[in-house]
Amino acid sequence: MYTIGVDLGATFVKMGIVDSKARVSYRRKIQTPSGVKKSHLIDIIVCNIRDIIKESGKKVSGVGIGVPGPVDSEKGIVHYFPNIKGWKEVPLESILKKRLGLRVKLDNDVNVTTLGEFVFGSGKGCENLVCITLGTGVGGGIIINGKLYRGGSMVAGEIGHMPINETGPECNCRGIACLERYIGNRYILERARKVFGNSATLEKLSALARSGNKKAIAIWLDVAKKLSVTLIGVVNLLNPDKIVIGGGVSKAGPLILVPLSKEIKSRAMKDQARHVKICLAKLGADAGIIGASLLV
Amino acid sequence: MYTIGVDLGATFVKMGIVDSKARVSYRRKIQTPSGVKKSHLIDIIVCNIRDIIKESGKKVSGVGIGVPGPVDSEKGIVHYFPNIKGWKEVPLESILKKRLGLRVKLDNDVNVTTLGEFVFGSGKGCENLVCITLGTGVGGGIIINGKLYRGGSMVAGEIGHMPINETGPECNCRGIACLERYIGNRYILERARKVFGNSATLEKLSALARSGNKKAIAIWLDVAKKLSVTLIGVVNLLNPDKIVIGGGVSKAGPLILVPLSKEIKSRAMKDQARHVKICLAKLGADAGIIGASLLV
Repeated sequence: MYTIGVDLGATFVKMGIVDSKARVSYRRKIQTPSGVKKSHLIDIIVCNIRDIIKESGKKVSGVGIGVPGPVDSEKGIVHYFPNIKGWKEVPLESILKKRLGLRVKLDNDVNVTTLGEFVFGSGKGCENLVCITLGTGVGGGIIINGKLYRGGSMVAGEIGHMPINETGPECNCRGIACLERYIGNRYILERARKVFGNSATLEKLSALARSGNKKAIAIWLDVAKKLSVTLIGVVNLLNPDKIVIGGGVSKAGPLILVPLSKEIKSRAMKDQARHVKICLAKLGADAGIIGASLLV
Repeated sequence: MYTIGVDLGATFVKMGIVDSKARVSYRRKIQTPSGVKKSHLIDIIVCNIRDIIKESGKKVSGVGIGVPGPVDSEKGIVHYFPNIKGWKEVPLESILKKRLGLRVKLDNDVNVTTLGEFVFGSGKGCENLVCITLGTGVGGGIIINGKLYRGGSMVAGEIGHMPINETGPECNCRGIACLERYIGNRYILERARKVFGNSATLEKLSALARSGNKKAIAIWLDVAKKLSVTLIGVVNLLNPDKIVIGGGVSKAGPLILVPLSKEIKSRAMKDQARHVKICLAKLGADAGIIGASLLV
């Protein structure tokens, strides 16, 4: 049994053929042309899907696609993409279905990643799971009683927009002191550049911290501390079995995970703290493709 | 069809016979004797249940009981009561079942209140609901996809122990800057007494605010502001259909509800803010009895 997973992003379109054991083959990674028109981007997706089906010679039962923005996953409609222009209330599911003659299912990228980690990754075997992705944005996906929880109007999971202070900087979402406003990667980078100059990158910041640089360590400690404020709240509220941490910033690995776990284990309520496991995501760069393939 | 609902509290034991339309009759309200032994408190519950069954002459199909502390609702065990001594891992469900010869179901008081509001109160018709009770403690109950959500180890819902600041006062739960540490009723009272002297009560504080006293209004505005920090986070995370606010402090009514709603509607993310309704609980003093009766 083979399905195709498509990970549509503002930077890359990634796709592959996925088998029932989450093995990915016939990978494609296409740079998303900047300023690309909607119809061209759809053509790129359609052509590449057709190509890999042909190349592989496999019988494919459907296509799952994760997209970078809010969707109505029941109706298969993209509401809009914050970082790709020209998309507004696009019935992408039915468009692809018509052109490919295959079953197509759609969801947003964080839900798709959460689904991937839940079925094949770090969240395997958990009934109640929260997945947080640390990148340009700070996103979240929630598994409740073994199923993706989408909320009353399909926009649940915005963990990055939970406030961590009563007062603080205003966020793009119009909130005050949202977690993302402190630890979205551009804000971590801003802090790093103030200390280490304009050539600083998150990779260099991690490397410096690993080699013992105290200023770099302090920045990561503060990221972990801020993240812990939100996650202590989430742990006390939802009593999850596991918190899975993914996304680019999570590549800092133990620099975040160790102080974060310590803070949650010592400050969340005892029963919740004892129960919850904190770990890094497992599927890495393939999470989007594997998760999307699970939609169908 | 009649069931008995029991609302076991550290101050009162309340019970009554509840019909299928949530009408309560044969009410009893017994002061919980201070320092009461466990076996005596169980005797009080058993005798009064037997009495009202006899008095009413009704055929009763079971007993639901809401208790003031953490429980294992599947096994029917009370873990402990923070405010009644001598209870530790008590299989209250099976004890009552044996003595009464009736079906018995157990849950904690906030879950029971949430269930009551969900089935017969302000939460009627909602699939995804968060109920928050404002009193000595700040508790929470969560309905997800039309069912009470209990969490991975049955202790979900601790909304009062979500931090609202990175730094702040330490809470009894060992957390830092928990919501309850600011707006639990003793802390509101402390503030009121600093301004209005030792005879201040929450009722007087509400009355003063209603008559236009600016200092009293300022205290309630700040309570609403702090509550909004937590609830904006919960709304962005869970995208609920409704937030229901109950408990003693909620008697301040519009003094809290109006500024709170305004804050959530303007600061939570647009889709979530548009979707969610904020309202006061409806069942009042009977919520515990009605909710408990729904357990069976």
